[in-house]
Amino acid sequence: MSLLDRREALGLSALTLAGALSNSATSFAGASLPSGLSGDRFKAALKDLRLIVGDAWVFADPEAILPYEKSYIPDPQGRHIPCGAVCPASTEEVQAILRVAGQYGLPLWPISTGKNMGYGSATPATPGQMILDLKRMNRILHVDPDLATALVEPGVTYQQLSDYLAEHNIPLWIDVPTVGPIVGPVGNTLDRGVGYTPYGDHFMFQCGMEVVLADGQILKTGMGSLPQSTTWQAFKWGYGPYLDGLFTQSNFGVVTKMGLWLMPKPPVYKPFMVRHHKMEDIGPLVEAMRPLRIAQLIPNCVLMMGAAYQLSMFKRRSDVWDGEGPISDEAVAKAAKANELGMWNSYFALYGTEEMVAAIEPVTTAALRASGGDVLTEREMNGNPWFHHHETLMRGGLNLDEIGMVRWKGAGGGLAWFAPVAPAKGEETKAQTDLAKQILGKYGFDYTAAWVIGWRELHHICALLYDRSDPEEHARADQCYNELVVSFAKKGWGSYRTGVSSMDLVAKQFGETNRNVNQALKRALDPKGIIAPGKSGIM
Amino acid sequence: MSLLDRREALGLSALTLAGALSNSATSFAGASLPSGLSGDRFKAALKDLRLIVGDAWVFADPEAILPYEKSYIPDPQGRHIPCGAVCPASTEEVQAILRVAGQYGLPLWPISTGKNMGYGSATPATPGQMILDLKRMNRILHVDPDLATALVEPGVTYQQLSDYLAEHNIPLWIDVPTVGPIVGPVGNTLDRGVGYTPYGDHFMFQCGMEVVLADGQILKTGMGSLPQSTTWQAFKWGYGPYLDGLFTQSNFGVVTKMGLWLMPKPPVYKPFMVRHHKMEDIGPLVEAMRPLRIAQLIPNCVLMMGAAYQLSMFKRRSDVWDGEGPISDEAVAKAAKANELGMWNSYFALYGTEEMVAAIEPVTTAALRASGGDVLTEREMNGNPWFHHHETLMRGGLNLDEIGMVRWKGAGGGLAWFAPVAPAKGEETKAQTDLAKQILGKYGFDYTAAWVIGWRELHHICALLYDRSDPEEHARADQCYNELVVSFAKKGWGSYRTGVSSMDLVAKQFGETNRNVNQALKRALDPKGIIAPGKSGIM
Repeated sequence: MSLLDRREALGLSALTLAGALSNSATSFAGASLPSGLSGDRFKAALKDLRLIVGDAWVFADPEAILPYEKSYIPDPQGRHIPCGAVCPASTEEVQAILRVAGQYGLPLWPISTGKNMGYGSATPATPGQMILDLKRMNRILHVDPDLATALVEPGVTYQQLSDYLAEHNIPLWIDVPTVGPIVGPVGNTLDRGVGYTPYGDHFMFQCGMEVVLADGQILKTGMGSLPQSTTWQAFKWGYGPYLDGLFTQSNFGVVTKMGLWLMPKPPVYKPFMVRHHKMEDIGPLVEAMRPLRIAQLIPNCVLMMGAAYQLSMFKRRSDVWDGEGPISDEAVAKAAKANELGMWNSYFALYGTEEMVAAIEPVTTAALRASGGDVLTEREMNGNPWFHHHETLMRGGLNLDEIGMVRWKGAGGGLAWFAPVAPAKGEETKAQTDLAKQILGKYGFDYTAAWVIGWRELHHICALLYDRSDPEEHARADQCYNELVVSFAKKGWGSYRTGVSSMDLVAKQFGETNRNVNQALKRALDPKGIIAPGKSGIM
Repeated sequence: MSLLDRREALGLSALTLAGALSNSATSFAGASLPSGLSGDRFKAALKDLRLIVGDAWVFADPEAILPYEKSYIPDPQGRHIPCGAVCPASTEEVQAILRVAGQYGLPLWPISTGKNMGYGSATPATPGQMILDLKRMNRILHVDPDLATALVEPGVTYQQLSDYLAEHNIPLWIDVPTVGPIVGPVGNTLDRGVGYTPYGDHFMFQCGMEVVLADGQILKTGMGSLPQSTTWQAFKWGYGPYLDGLFTQSNFGVVTKMGLWLMPKPPVYKPFMVRHHKMEDIGPLVEAMRPLRIAQLIPNCVLMMGAAYQLSMFKRRSDVWDGEGPISDEAVAKAAKANELGMWNSYFALYGTEEMVAAIEPVTTAALRASGGDVLTEREMNGNPWFHHHETLMRGGLNLDEIGMVRWKGAGGGLAWFAPVAPAKGEETKAQTDLAKQILGKYGFDYTAAWVIGWRELHHICALLYDRSDPEEHARADQCYNELVVSFAKKGWGSYRTGVSSMDLVAKQFGETNRNVNQALKRALDPKGIIAPGKSGIM
């Protein structure tokens, strides 16, 4: 079957149930079914699924699936509507569900908490998939206080893990992404999300998985496949080909358990903010940060937040700008200044003993001052809500402050993350900022962006904020996002992650061989294409 | 084709050429051919290979392939003899060779430098494979002094990379494994080898690959598949499933380029040695090391060297022991003491500014003294050859001191690394030491071992040293190794890596599902099983 045929079969041409099923239950009206699956067969599949998880945990009527349809990303054609949801409580139920799905040709879109805000939330990449909602599998299976590791199920949230550590008086820190309280380590890590502490590269600090394959086999990766293994969460690579990477940003299996490493609480934690005052300061700032990060003098994932992004968290756009088109640099600078912010606001922290922090601080301060920044601490910034927000995140603390940004342009708010990667070099950083600003501006959108510096690379996190309640603007946001993807790729810059509506487009930028290999792996592990067709552009 | 049939087809039942080819050139006599390939077909394949690389770079007569047969690991049945070797000079030649190999059913065993001492050196996992010797592909393609990254071909040695950095005055350090001067980053990283600096986990610090697939397609992993990518060596994970892990300890493709990260030379480097005096001190030692490593107070891969291993580097066994059976603890302790060594000798280092090292040193010293160790520095150990050896390695320096150990029992020396993983916990470390010592002792072999502490796990590196010139001892070493693998697996402990003669046995310990998945991936990427059949037990 060619890639095109497979796409066809798996739903890119899905008909709405209303059309395909005119003689069927009206309660399905409006929902999409994967093409090739008749309404009767779908109803039979639902019946089988109910036998596995119980009536209460299969949803197919429009009202019940409404929560799974909520999304912030552009989807002007409504292509990302699921046909229902099923909520297993155990690995065995996941196996049974996969068996039924294979039998009926019913594609399943696994989610852990489904709050992937700005990347599509719970919605599937192609229409008519059944959400495989793993929220009921929410056990913290093990925390090893000595090895500083945890083993959790997909439904576990960061809040839950944090509470568990507090309750059991275990002095370990978690690392949270944005909106940590309502999302969880499994979902975020599988999408290769990042956080704010030294453990910010979540996939780097993941160790061991249990994966249910399309044929029902249970694979334990790494050392986990040895009976009675004591090293499953201790040693990442295992023996033979290292497989964990296969199950991130992909659709080759359903991850039902995941190990992760936790950070021992340091004796001293000291957060800093560095304020730069001009847009073009991003160049010298990155040049100063790179050697500090590579040498691990600054050990955490540093956020370099653009002023407009910062403002969008706690302000409405109308407070700051009432002109035509994108908000001007002058207006941003003025509002930033009024809130003790610069055009770039970088947050980093030092962790260690009193003596270690004292030894490193002069080095980091000197380098960042030389780049033109004001280096500030709790003393100067105490009470500032932005400082407070980032100070919390850099010690693995939980807060929901950033959710506010979806309402930047009003209550109908929309958000899509465009997240290209740059090398940690001043010139390219500046060039990406300029290009993003130019394309966003062309479509009338603001440059509300931040940079995250890993070891040697930057994630350029551009929040495309738009009004989703305005159909014209909704369509324009979609076009803008697509132009961003293609224009950046032409310069050699690819995204590290994208939302469900642009997964295929981003995959295209990575070339034919990459797609062929992913597709060959998909055929080997899930020949019927049951698991999450369309994820990362893989059918 | 079942797994068994495939094994059959691919050489486990290979006949020697002498039998299969009685009417053919005698210069092949003694070498193995993969079963299913006649002598005439083999000769035709050689002819085609010569058209690709030139006459000078195809070897098939017994004398010419002798260097590829040299191995230190037990192989009492002589099952790891190649049928020849071919040496391409470019990625294009590798593609052409794979085409020919596919056409004739000629399995290829890729090597970079082929000096994988104690794991099988250049020899293939099954008889009759053609060595794909990549030594001529030895270009350092790029070093980025700012990002601290390199892109190299498989034939590049650590010595060559070190010389390049020195010549170009680039203040970056490499991280070397044992016998660094004669081996290279690609081969070592693909086998997931480890070194001695903070960059000791080589696969962790690898970034981007070029891989030739069995069908000739060229895959660039990570960000490399974007045309004109500037982030191939900067960002490890790419977009979609992370694939690099697939090409480590496996046979899914031929890696022809690899990116790696280099460590900026720190202003201050201070090496330490910690001496513990009793075998059972390994427990408290590991308990003390674990929190220091997890908190990155000690940032490098710490070697905790048993006294017998240390002695084997510079002494002959007969200098130390003339009794029956394995060397006694008392004899080891006595010889160790005479050489300023303890029963355990741990080497770690601090890296940073003067102030940082001064801030950390009191913490590490206090913790390690509390575990019962003498904490020593250059001041006390200056001139000691063991201290000098490890001091060199922990700053990425090159030396060949450890090669001496293969002659511990005389000139006919044999060496096989048995390398199970333990969690970094005192009790399990002690239990593994006891079990290894007991099994080795049962077969009359010494416990010449070291522990390497990663972040949360230990590699238990046991050197099985035997006299390969004694057929009885050779066979005994083979049996001993197999018992080690099986007995450790029964306790839940698996190896992180093994030699070509035990790859299948180790793979078995990781269970059926793991094997099924690896085999499914193999069929997807190399359906004819041309690349390195038997590697990690995958046919």
